[in-house]
Amino acid sequence: MKNIIDGGFKGQIYPINPKGSKILGWACYPSLINIPIDKIDLVIIVVPAKFIPGVMEDAAKKQANCAVIISGGFREAGNDDLELSVIETAKKYGIRFIGPNCQGITYTPNNLCAAWPLMKSKGNMAIISQSGTVGAAFAGWTKEDNLGLSSFVSLGNKSDIDEIDLIKYFSVDQSTKVIGMYLEGVKDGRAFMNIGRSIVNKKPIIVLRPGRTHKGSIAAQSHTKSIAGDYKIFDAACKQVGIIKADTVYELYDFSKIFSLCKIPKGNRCLIITSSGGSGILATDVAEKNNVNILTLKSETKDILHQSLPSHCIIGNPLDLTGDTNAERYYEVVKKLKNIDYIDIVLLVFGDPIPNAADFAKKMKDEVSQEIVTCYIGGGDIQTKEVLNLHQVGIPTFPTPERAMRAISALIQYKNFFQKSILGLEK
Amino acid sequence: MKNIIDGGFKGQIYPINPKGSKILGWACYPSLINIPIDKIDLVIIVVPAKFIPGVMEDAAKKQANCAVIISGGFREAGNDDLELSVIETAKKYGIRFIGPNCQGITYTPNNLCAAWPLMKSKGNMAIISQSGTVGAAFAGWTKEDNLGLSSFVSLGNKSDIDEIDLIKYFSVDQSTKVIGMYLEGVKDGRAFMNIGRSIVNKKPIIVLRPGRTHKGSIAAQSHTKSIAGDYKIFDAACKQVGIIKADTVYELYDFSKIFSLCKIPKGNRCLIITSSGGSGILATDVAEKNNVNILTLKSETKDILHQSLPSHCIIGNPLDLTGDTNAERYYEVVKKLKNIDYIDIVLLVFGDPIPNAADFAKKMKDEVSQEIVTCYIGGGDIQTKEVLNLHQVGIPTFPTPERAMRAISALIQYKNFFQKSILGLEK
Repeated sequence: MKNIIDGGFKGQIYPINPKGSKILGWACYPSLINIPIDKIDLVIIVVPAKFIPGVMEDAAKKQANCAVIISGGFREAGNDDLELSVIETAKKYGIRFIGPNCQGITYTPNNLCAAWPLMKSKGNMAIISQSGTVGAAFAGWTKEDNLGLSSFVSLGNKSDIDEIDLIKYFSVDQSTKVIGMYLEGVKDGRAFMNIGRSIVNKKPIIVLRPGRTHKGSIAAQSHTKSIAGDYKIFDAACKQVGIIKADTVYELYDFSKIFSLCKIPKGNRCLIITSSGGSGILATDVAEKNNVNILTLKSETKDILHQSLPSHCIIGNPLDLTGDTNAERYYEVVKKLKNIDYIDIVLLVFGDPIPNAADFAKKMKDEVSQEIVTCYIGGGDIQTKEVLNLHQVGIPTFPTPERAMRAISALIQYKNFFQKSILGLEK
Repeated sequence: MKNIIDGGFKGQIYPINPKGSKILGWACYPSLINIPIDKIDLVIIVVPAKFIPGVMEDAAKKQANCAVIISGGFREAGNDDLELSVIETAKKYGIRFIGPNCQGITYTPNNLCAAWPLMKSKGNMAIISQSGTVGAAFAGWTKEDNLGLSSFVSLGNKSDIDEIDLIKYFSVDQSTKVIGMYLEGVKDGRAFMNIGRSIVNKKPIIVLRPGRTHKGSIAAQSHTKSIAGDYKIFDAACKQVGIIKADTVYELYDFSKIFSLCKIPKGNRCLIITSSGGSGILATDVAEKNNVNILTLKSETKDILHQSLPSHCIIGNPLDLTGDTNAERYYEVVKKLKNIDYIDIVLLVFGDPIPNAADFAKKMKDEVSQEIVTCYIGGGDIQTKEVLNLHQVGIPTFPTPERAMRAISALIQYKNFFQKSILGLEK
């Protein structure tokens, strides 16, 4: 309730508690039926499990058709019958619900944060998570990164609303550009594939699905009693419909972030421009393993660069501006690439403190056709500030060259899969 | 010079500049030979490349036997002859030097930070890096993590002092417990293997060596003109002598950190205790792929845990304390493992905000024989504080379950290689 208030939700809030007269200074009602209106839009439930069927009955009397059941103590704790009873009650009255055993929901377009942590910043990433903590971590990273979310939905036991309902919802949600998901299991694999196929060419879907090893799969089954199924089949299914698979929680976030901020590039040819030779090499290795083409500069391009750069710069790809560079030098180089059609993506690696990196990167973004992605590493306090600034101007930045290049490879993977659709979109 | 002063170096500092009378308020000498003492311990050189042979001549007159040449503009910029001239001058007078084309050196036991960023915090990790930025990033992470370094050495062109000299040095340096290295190439592969073999059983060595792909290898050659050699041979050599290979800059840091703070465990059997089911599964997957044994709890252990934990906890491995847990519940569990000899390592995953995690983890560390490693994720501001506290009490913590488990696997890899030596050490 504190987060609903602090989140700035503009609708009416009716706190309910049978024991108390006030919650956080707000007058309480002893039960749902005492609320002085006839129709309730949404009921957020955080009472002990055994009371929930009764609460659902009350909700029905107030014509509620949506609920979020945060409380645990159901199937995951061996109380299957109680969960079934909640499902039946909900079905009887036509109440759709999220949970139980979840961390709530956030939808920033209407300032509703009925979840934790507090999420207020608006953005275009939706995160659907079967793990509250993974969702919270994702939300925390958006905050640290000066970015926002459109929505966070904690799935919990998925007794009613599941990933398929939510993909459908976000596919038409105008505030959402990319859907990130942490899923421990999928109830209906075929339905998941079908919905994925119909939506992913309009909105990228990123999925992290753990339990890929034998013991990991057993752990997944104990956690949410999901039918874990075979990881390889799931993997192949994603590949077949163009859903992007993340291998770690970082990748789930990084891939969502790059789709949130970047356009889909026209090709897979990437130029790395760096002040740190080492970081350039690390990025190149990741590119080579992930189908990103570290293109060879043509001799006429090299000539242009040789004329405009100090002689100690290493003209190649990576293009090493070396340690004495400032942000303007990156800009001077990228400006010259404006009409070069054999470069699709530029990765700028800012190694060590480089002030005003965001200002110059923004100019590049405005002036050239290539997608601009950045990595900022080893830059201390200046880095901390510039990372916020870069995201402020809509340019993704990553804390290591490996993470930056893996994120780029996700863009490329998507482009390769949907080449035709994307060309269509770009007309 | 600002970092030498701010770092608190206690020795005499003699600033030299032919043009200025003061640097940062300190009186300058026009050249080395004007310094009013006969013998100089160390010369830090940051003047244009062409003047450096002359500076070395002056240094010799002042009986200097060590120098750090930060300036670039030598072999890496095509000026091979100038570099050879510096090498000859140094050899002639018996001056050993680091660089040129490097980011300086830091040695915290004597408060010397002749490098950037400013590094003051003392610790037992030494980082040797052929990339200034990778070293700076490493140093930055130690700062964010409330940890310290014994030393940072930026190798640069390695015209004289190289990784082999430095490994020898740190092998007997009492302030150093673990050696982390970023290397783009090794001058003498056999010598590297020999020195590694003789030292790594006393002090773990972690190496990140990029350039493992074709284009990555070309980039490495352009950067420091290293002879990149074949990655597979290097890889096999490391494996043969027990050097731990890191695959990313994060791993270089994480592996160094876990060796810095942990003892070598007796075996590879790991129990994951978590408040986040999802994080437990992610950690399990990484364990399974990296030879960490996610042991099966014996039924008598399960009985003990069932008696002391709320019924909604999931007793298994991962042991899921679920989302309502506090730090004390972790402690109550771990206390009961004290005399259980089939568990070598405990990974505590703190998911979502859990106050006082560090206090209770410290009690565990003091009271049980198992190694305690932690992950803290999705915990917002409380996490930020607890991460600092955990490192303060000497317990490693990692920001994702994947990073935590990969670090544990590095400990196990080391243990497996040096089982005999370690048993010897533990007598």
